[in-house]
Amino acid sequence: MVINSNIQDWVPWMRRVIRLALLADGQTSPNPLVGAVILDSNNRIVGEGFHSFAGNPHAEIEALSQAGPLAKGGTLLVNLEPCCHDGRTPPCTEAILKSGVSRVVVAMNDPDPRVSGKGIDLLKKAGVEVITGVLEDEAAFLNRAFIFRNKTGRPWGILKWAMSFDGRIGLPNGASKWISQKSSRERVHALRAKCDAVIVGGETVRIDNPLLTSRGINKVEPLRVVLSSSLKLPINAQLWNTENAKTLICYGPESDVGLLKKLPNGPEKVLLDQSSPSKLLELLAQKGCNKVLWECGSSLATSAIIENCVQEIVCFVAPKLLGGVSAMTPLGDFGFTSLEHVIPVKKVSTYKNGNDFVFTMLLNDKDL
Amino acid sequence: MVINSNIQDWVPWMRRVIRLALLADGQTSPNPLVGAVILDSNNRIVGEGFHSFAGNPHAEIEALSQAGPLAKGGTLLVNLEPCCHDGRTPPCTEAILKSGVSRVVVAMNDPDPRVSGKGIDLLKKAGVEVITGVLEDEAAFLNRAFIFRNKTGRPWGILKWAMSFDGRIGLPNGASKWISQKSSRERVHALRAKCDAVIVGGETVRIDNPLLTSRGINKVEPLRVVLSSSLKLPINAQLWNTENAKTLICYGPESDVGLLKKLPNGPEKVLLDQSSPSKLLELLAQKGCNKVLWECGSSLATSAIIENCVQEIVCFVAPKLLGGVSAMTPLGDFGFTSLEHVIPVKKVSTYKNGNDFVFTMLLNDKDL
Repeated sequence: MVINSNIQDWVPWMRRVIRLALLADGQTSPNPLVGAVILDSNNRIVGEGFHSFAGNPHAEIEALSQAGPLAKGGTLLVNLEPCCHDGRTPPCTEAILKSGVSRVVVAMNDPDPRVSGKGIDLLKKAGVEVITGVLEDEAAFLNRAFIFRNKTGRPWGILKWAMSFDGRIGLPNGASKWISQKSSRERVHALRAKCDAVIVGGETVRIDNPLLTSRGINKVEPLRVVLSSSLKLPINAQLWNTENAKTLICYGPESDVGLLKKLPNGPEKVLLDQSSPSKLLELLAQKGCNKVLWECGSSLATSAIIENCVQEIVCFVAPKLLGGVSAMTPLGDFGFTSLEHVIPVKKVSTYKNGNDFVFTMLLNDKDL
Repeated sequence: MVINSNIQDWVPWMRRVIRLALLADGQTSPNPLVGAVILDSNNRIVGEGFHSFAGNPHAEIEALSQAGPLAKGGTLLVNLEPCCHDGRTPPCTEAILKSGVSRVVVAMNDPDPRVSGKGIDLLKKAGVEVITGVLEDEAAFLNRAFIFRNKTGRPWGILKWAMSFDGRIGLPNGASKWISQKSSRERVHALRAKCDAVIVGGETVRIDNPLLTSRGINKVEPLRVVLSSSLKLPINAQLWNTENAKTLICYGPESDVGLLKKLPNGPEKVLLDQSSPSKLLELLAQKGCNKVLWECGSSLATSAIIENCVQEIVCFVAPKLLGGVSAMTPLGDFGFTSLEHVIPVKKVSTYKNGNDFVFTMLLNDKDL
């Protein structure tokens, strides 16, 4: 049995697998992103597939059914360990063994405790050669949200803001439309499409009256969430129209529930143990969210960071100066008194989008 | 006579000329940055030179003296029109004609009204072929400070700040050492070396007690300038030690001059018509400054921008989050009430310096 003997040989195919998996980015929750490629015994591609939606066939099944009898004696490449339990669909290991592939190449183990190594063991015991660890870091990054939720019970949080070069997200009078250019706002729509929920506070509803959709980029729009402790929400708001996208209003025990009755029936309303980012994210994990986008103001954003509900930041910087000591800032007070204690950000990367710069960064690279 | 017939042919040589000129960046004021290359009649380099310091020979003279008799029948390339007037040194046109070069290639006309086309005319009349406009934009950018001072009577202003990714230059308690990493602070020393003066307000002296030197990168340190309307300056400050670098204290008619007597004798003290950025820069232009660096807090920086005393911004962004609604920001209030009226920045470029990002931008690309 040859194990991990030729990891490098499989890298180009595994890149293809990850590209396939990404085709459904934002559509598979609570499931992970998975792609699969089948090679025949001469290493020619004879099947490809990806998991497109929870309840739809797994990537392995899609690829195997494309390959048919050509899979026999060939290789299956998949970015995540094949499942070996009955979920909404039968276990993939069963179909793999039935297909007659003689080799399975896996990027990483499934963090789901129901699988987690058991799928690989089962295949090995059945005499299939299993090679693991091919593009493991890339595969872990691909499914960072799924993995994080499995580890912590909370979805992966992305905080987004758009600011000027002097670090302002709005003018002193609150004007903030628009800091970034149109194509950057379209990037935000695309970012929403990759998330399962978009979260704002009551203040953002009151001031901006946002729509918070992907503008139809995905068939299923992300759940739009309002976290409001006061429940002082406007009677009319774009978010209350739930025709194209669902809305969830969350509040805590201290909220004036009398105000709930004034709100329309479209949005779901849920009482949390506490009106806090972490309690909200526990609920959203239960609802199957792997990845959520914080599009809130500085006060809620700061609480979310303090409660470890933000893993990633996407920051748009527009070529403008807004000025203003009292102008709106992306974050509120953390109470730091020394620069040795401020929050470091890691793995910062950037690209230019028109005249705007877009930065992505992690708050803790150990979250990966 | 062939004019501008083959501009492209001379581009590679002119790039070399600009590289030579840059060797003295920050050392030539009030003079421009000038480099020169001499080719013999077979287009082989036989002489190179640059203007190293006001009072030292001009670039053309350096290059011609290196070439000696080999210049005859050859080509002189220079980024700025040769001078035709007696300054601290005799006119270059005289030496050029004496050398017997048959062609002079120039990137741009000298904006100095004493030259401004006259040098080129003189050479042409003497039968020398003159080609102009080779890398003209690059040459104009190279000498943007010299050109700007000639046009406006004020030095080119660069505003520098270092901030976190949430746009903070310090914590709410004023702590700001250090936002950026050591190698970025060394970049600031190098930036100072390219400037003729470094300006702060009294507040920066009181809070930071900075040294403001290039740390010996240049033999002649930039003039360190304190603009203080209150003159409430500490008795002891690093800036008052003028052994390695000069210091200038500027104040306005409203200042309490009684406080001046408490300050040591080392720094020069000058009363301005008004304690304002523009009045200060007029004085610094008279003192021969082409380029000045604003290293002040947000209040003075904002006044400097409002009075058109900032042409360029260099912004260091460190991978940190500081937070704080009341934390220190790079700029103060401009009074904007709509995003349509905020200040656009142009020609933003960036590079990564270790983990920090460095952005340079222009406030008005028409300043070039």
